[in-house]
Amino acid sequence: MVKESGSAIASPNIAFIKYWGNKNSELRLPSNGSLSMTLNGLETRTTVYLDPGLSSDSLIINGETAGPLPLQRVSGFLDILRQHFNQKDCAAIESNNNFPPGTGIASSASAFAALAAAYTRAIGEFPDNRELSILSRFGSGSASRSIHSGFVEWYAGEKSSESYAEQIAPPSHWNLVDLIIITGYAHKKVGSFAGHALADTSPLQHARVQNCRSRLDSCRTAILNRDFELLAEIAELDSNLMHAVMLTSSPPLIYWEPATILLMKSIRTWREEGLPVFYTIDAGPNVHCFTTEQEHESVLRKIKSLPSVQDVLISRPGEGIRYPD
Amino acid sequence: MVKESGSAIASPNIAFIKYWGNKNSELRLPSNGSLSMTLNGLETRTTVYLDPGLSSDSLIINGETAGPLPLQRVSGFLDILRQHFNQKDCAAIESNNNFPPGTGIASSASAFAALAAAYTRAIGEFPDNRELSILSRFGSGSASRSIHSGFVEWYAGEKSSESYAEQIAPPSHWNLVDLIIITGYAHKKVGSFAGHALADTSPLQHARVQNCRSRLDSCRTAILNRDFELLAEIAELDSNLMHAVMLTSSPPLIYWEPATILLMKSIRTWREEGLPVFYTIDAGPNVHCFTTEQEHESVLRKIKSLPSVQDVLISRPGEGIRYPD
Repeated sequence: MVKESGSAIASPNIAFIKYWGNKNSELRLPSNGSLSMTLNGLETRTTVYLDPGLSSDSLIINGETAGPLPLQRVSGFLDILRQHFNQKDCAAIESNNNFPPGTGIASSASAFAALAAAYTRAIGEFPDNRELSILSRFGSGSASRSIHSGFVEWYAGEKSSESYAEQIAPPSHWNLVDLIIITGYAHKKVGSFAGHALADTSPLQHARVQNCRSRLDSCRTAILNRDFELLAEIAELDSNLMHAVMLTSSPPLIYWEPATILLMKSIRTWREEGLPVFYTIDAGPNVHCFTTEQEHESVLRKIKSLPSVQDVLISRPGEGIRYPD
Repeated sequence: MVKESGSAIASPNIAFIKYWGNKNSELRLPSNGSLSMTLNGLETRTTVYLDPGLSSDSLIINGETAGPLPLQRVSGFLDILRQHFNQKDCAAIESNNNFPPGTGIASSASAFAALAAAYTRAIGEFPDNRELSILSRFGSGSASRSIHSGFVEWYAGEKSSESYAEQIAPPSHWNLVDLIIITGYAHKKVGSFAGHALADTSPLQHARVQNCRSRLDSCRTAILNRDFELLAEIAELDSNLMHAVMLTSSPPLIYWEPATILLMKSIRTWREEGLPVFYTIDAGPNVHCFTTEQEHESVLRKIKSLPSVQDVLISRPGEGIRYPD
């Protein structure tokens, strides 16, 4: 019997309007729609090997055998794919990231987008990107956005077939630069996977979700019109809204570190002084500082002059799912 | 003509359930009720001199002539008192604090409580503490609470006569210790006086207010039962809720400094390790760390071992309004 394999590459994305909380956890229907930019230069490469002789799934990440919890999550996701495509073979998965995990760069987004795509190639299926977006959503909500390049909106939807992401503008539309400021490589105490389940324990989550449609509209408009100032205001507000919910959930999630606050305040001050900069922060301490191509070198110098900055990754609008073959 | 004078002393207070935003700014009716502890050891002493010969009010704080903005605010408050008591003389005011202003210790609370009380003595009036609480509310909302000793609740009310504070337990009820951690003496960019007007620009303020009745009930219960763990959870949640609103108002108010985040996380960790500690933070970077009489020395040592801690003031449940004569 021939051993089948398939490979795919996906990049993480950073959301301007963030996904936090599910209205249906089982179907992974998010409480609100979200809007992101796929990040170039950062990638997860995944190969899936299928073999009827395997008695269980296995997972190697960056050359190391994964622990039971990541394997369990991946295996559960594979079960969904197997059921969807009427398959039964177990899979051996090899995945490599070119960026550090657990730092607020959404590694689960690129991981599950690449895994969904690689799996379909291994079984000889060629679903379109909408179907891939729906499928990868079951692994990690934000993976649905990493299927697409450039600027991407994920519609919350009322049922599974309506909850997928689409590109709203290609990478060439706007040459934004994302300076990803690494303040620490420590693993998070509570990952975003577990955090989503806490969202509804915050007395503020409902209000955040209710207000989301107008933020999505403003954010989409800002991107389509390349309106930096509008995007700055709405992205910082949305980031603060998500962290407000995290800070007030039970138990509270305090993802910020001292350096995070320093960067938030510095970036706001720089913008008041006339620099085109804004921040957005995922479920971790690191700060994404957006700026323009023209100003990114001077902004980078300012960032590196601050204490507690360990490293800065430079990213721009990037590609969606792709295949190395 | 005899020059009349009156003096009073008031202490600041720290709220477990915080006042943020007004439902009626003109009448200073707060959006939600609040609950606080009056702080001993810290005080504002104020003397009001009345003289028909004065052509305008004057204000000396800590030996220095106050600038036009503080004088304008005080003079506007005196107008309310003059109208209420059918008076017309201008006032020369001397006020002294034994604690640094602009550090998140609510100096306006003790200032306006002391001013209201000193003024009534100067005109020979002896209103009861409920009336004093109502009157001082017009100077600063939280001043209504500083009239009373110990543990104090301010009822929001629907009209001015219903919006006053009352003691719910005397200072002797519970020997809590408040370690007030000074991380910086810089004056705030936006004081709480201006900040209240921004509360309703946050998409989260309504939800914070709606949820307040249950927090007030839990907090009152925690205090009456001396339930430290319940008070810890509810006070930290309430503090985070207020800062969540601040962070998401337009413009956002980021009162926290890097040291604030470090202290918030350290205090939570210490509590998880078994120490009776919790934090609450007013409109400033400094952190109030509550603990018990037994543990306060070991907590103090832990606090002083952290970086960015400039000073720690130690306070306990304190007296309300009092008269030096």
